[in-house]
Amino acid sequence: MDFRPHFKTHQSAAIGQWFIAQGIKKCCVSSVGMASYFASNHWKDITIAIPVNILEIAEINTLAKNIQLSLTVDSLETCVFLSSHLQFSVDLYIEIDTSYSRSGVAYHHTQQINEILELINQSPLMHFIGFLSHSGNTYDVDQAEEIAKIFELSKERMLTLKNKYSTQYPQLIISMGDTPSASFAQNFEGVDEWRPGNFVFYDLMQLQKGVCQNQEIALKLSCPVIGIYPERGEFVIYGGAVHLSKESIEYKNQKVFGLLVTHNNRELDHGFPVHRLSQEHGIITAAKSFLKTLKIGDLVEIVPVHSCLTADLHSHYLCEDGVVLEKWKEC
Amino acid sequence: MDFRPHFKTHQSAAIGQWFIAQGIKKCCVSSVGMASYFASNHWKDITIAIPVNILEIAEINTLAKNIQLSLTVDSLETCVFLSSHLQFSVDLYIEIDTSYSRSGVAYHHTQQINEILELINQSPLMHFIGFLSHSGNTYDVDQAEEIAKIFELSKERMLTLKNKYSTQYPQLIISMGDTPSASFAQNFEGVDEWRPGNFVFYDLMQLQKGVCQNQEIALKLSCPVIGIYPERGEFVIYGGAVHLSKESIEYKNQKVFGLLVTHNNRELDHGFPVHRLSQEHGIITAAKSFLKTLKIGDLVEIVPVHSCLTADLHSHYLCEDGVVLEKWKEC
Repeated sequence: MDFRPHFKTHQSAAIGQWFIAQGIKKCCVSSVGMASYFASNHWKDITIAIPVNILEIAEINTLAKNIQLSLTVDSLETCVFLSSHLQFSVDLYIEIDTSYSRSGVAYHHTQQINEILELINQSPLMHFIGFLSHSGNTYDVDQAEEIAKIFELSKERMLTLKNKYSTQYPQLIISMGDTPSASFAQNFEGVDEWRPGNFVFYDLMQLQKGVCQNQEIALKLSCPVIGIYPERGEFVIYGGAVHLSKESIEYKNQKVFGLLVTHNNRELDHGFPVHRLSQEHGIITAAKSFLKTLKIGDLVEIVPVHSCLTADLHSHYLCEDGVVLEKWKEC
Repeated sequence: MDFRPHFKTHQSAAIGQWFIAQGIKKCCVSSVGMASYFASNHWKDITIAIPVNILEIAEINTLAKNIQLSLTVDSLETCVFLSSHLQFSVDLYIEIDTSYSRSGVAYHHTQQINEILELINQSPLMHFIGFLSHSGNTYDVDQAEEIAKIFELSKERMLTLKNKYSTQYPQLIISMGDTPSASFAQNFEGVDEWRPGNFVFYDLMQLQKGVCQNQEIALKLSCPVIGIYPERGEFVIYGGAVHLSKESIEYKNQKVFGLLVTHNNRELDHGFPVHRLSQEHGIITAAKSFLKTLKIGDLVEIVPVHSCLTADLHSHYLCEDGVVLEKWKEC
């Protein structure tokens, strides 16, 4: 099975280099801008795994000229547009909706698939390479068995398509991938390409599902303490919705936007939660004994609920050894 | 009453010019970075209305050297730090927590206020100018009467402090301000300065409270249609959590992340909601008759739930007449 990691989570050429060092040559992104960034940073085989935004055809043509570009389509309309506007060769995945109901042709709509294939085949610049799906509904459940069940159903539906079309397209691949399934799926047989993204950092959401362990969470937000309120059992960080994002989860029966990591390790057991966020303020509940040790200007570390969204809000990463890693930021 | 609009919502020097044209010379921001941006763009009297992040003392000193800078403090510890690290003169507000429980000295803790004042008075570079509060809890209620009640209580508590300290500090001012109170408060007597922010754009949250009307909402997110799914009664835009933010509200018994504006006007009555968001996808429910008129690549306009967070995610505004307004974006 090929590995095509999704770089929408880290969005960093420097982190991309770690993958290159491991022999990985293909990646996946979620926007044309991100594809252009990685194309300028050593990546020559990139999939844009979101239905084509036809308004970006000029940038798509520039990419198609310079790299092995694969696009995702799920409509005749988009294929008609591409067939008359593409100037260079691209690979095309047909996105399949196996059960998530976000984008993709519904898995049983073979007539629509046939019509899309017919259009693709009429164009010398469009090459059908396979079916792509994302089982994002694994994020809606918490148990390993439920996650595995969603994966199995999606895989079964993708393999049915593979069997149906492999005589006509013997090279076609099945591309799948989400971080929860990556941890709990038992059998990837028949899946040709795997595209998880969040695994590079993990976060509180993945921890809660049992997808990762405390010590595997690699992203924390470092925030200065700007207010301490012992009477309220709370303190305030300079770290708000514009730094953490407003993603929340129910954690121990409370809505939380992040959790404090204490003692410079991965200790989450205290579970001091960021329980309110405004634009730049984060309000954290903590034990009085902890508040006594805290000083204005201390830096505390917050594990985010959803590392993809937190990372997106920042322009760089600071590693534990002091190295700064640049990332892409749309401006 | 002085008007010191909060620029954290628009973060744009170009929009700041509209205020200058109306004779406004003071503004308010929520970070040192934002203060530096406006200081470089004609603003010479700026309040940073969040407790001081002492780690940014170098930037604070640069600002204090160049403009009339006012800072917000609510702890002795911060004042001790400032008294030994400030190099230039600053004005100081003591932030008062009247009932919101975010930051600020609790309104009845006069001993703590006295101790802070004593420290301020010992420093030749720190000048106490008054008490500042933000009644952000008006965002937690929906009725005009409840909003007005929160404002009245906050004002009463601030005026009690004003009376108590005005003999000793005859010039002291009371600075308040939030957009819901700005609409529903009846009597501002005794309030010397008013600092609302969101009113510059409004949004779905304000609409729901009755703070604004449909046609007063000035910020929309323009999103390309990338997928249409008539069977599901849905379509997908290229516009996700990294474009709209994950702020949501309950609107007509449904969790929504934004609402579609149709026919290029402020018509919200259809109420087609963005009901799911992933990183770059927004999923919108719509009537089949509307879906029939939709084409891939159409631009649709979304009114955000919280314009402050949506605006923060972008680097510029596109006006209806085609003019592009630059804004600050931390990178």
